[in-house]
Amino acid sequence: MTKWSHWIFAGLMVVALLTTSQSAMADPKNEITYRRATMKALGGHMSALGTILSGRVKRGKGSVIFHARAIVSIGKLSHTLFAKGTGKGRTRARPAIWSKQNQFKKAIAAFKRASAKLAGVAGKGNFKTTRAAYKAVTKTCGGCHKAFRQPRRNK
Amino acid sequence: MTKWSHWIFAGLMVVALLTTSQSAMADPKNEITYRRATMKALGGHMSALGTILSGRVKRGKGSVIFHARAIVSIGKLSHTLFAKGTGKGRTRARPAIWSKQNQFKKAIAAFKRASAKLAGVAGKGNFKTTRAAYKAVTKTCGGCHKAFRQPRRNK
Repeated sequence: MTKWSHWIFAGLMVVALLTTSQSAMADPKNEITYRRATMKALGGHMSALGTILSGRVKRGKGSVIFHARAIVSIGKLSHTLFAKGTGKGRTRARPAIWSKQNQFKKAIAAFKRASAKLAGVAGKGNFKTTRAAYKAVTKTCGGCHKAFRQPRRNK
Repeated sequence: MTKWSHWIFAGLMVVALLTTSQSAMADPKNEITYRRATMKALGGHMSALGTILSGRVKRGKGSVIFHARAIVSIGKLSHTLFAKGTGKGRTRARPAIWSKQNQFKKAIAAFKRASAKLAGVAGKGNFKTTRAAYKAVTKTCGGCHKAFRQPRRNK
């Protein structure tokens, strides 16, 4: 084979690999649907837990633990919600998520750490320390939502 | 004491009891906030699980179980979300929730039963039977959302 044919062969291999990896990846639109649904659940749990911990509604330790654990679980899977190629469509995700991966990963890690602490504290049933841990979680939300999310567009 | 004074005394007792029970009840506005947040979490989990079970996104058994269990947990507490006096304000709850308590309780019970089955099936890791159990849950949503919820108002 000539040098040229080597290059053509290599080029075809790259095309084949790209095609394979693309068909293995789920439809970005559906990934965005799943992300939005999971973030909606997270928002619901955060708001519900905040309403309890601020004393605005009276609920038992069981409800506190339930919401806290759900927040942790979503924290654990949060890094899987941002597959490459899911930055366009019905989403406010900024391209920086993928171009500044290190910074984004740090922001997600901070949320994971804070929510893990929250669940640990919630299990002990002390309202005051749970509230402090909850506030620490809310502070990590901005790590992604300020730097990596576009502002809401007017409908 | 005369008969009249008996009646006046009884009347004052009733007023005192009503006042006490009202001050013990959380602010209806906050109860509605908690209800909306919890229902938002439920909607998020339902949508997320539906996206997985329909095969639109690929996620492992762990995610299926997580969403299913969250749905069950909200099912278990769902009857606590509709305290008397929480029918006015930022809510689409219909007065029928409180005037037709038997029918409402039956609708909630159907959701609880179906979601409990879902979690049981999800743990076994069979996608097909989990999907069937999920569909059974979605059918119970209408039990409340059709009969006991007002249609969305135009903003």
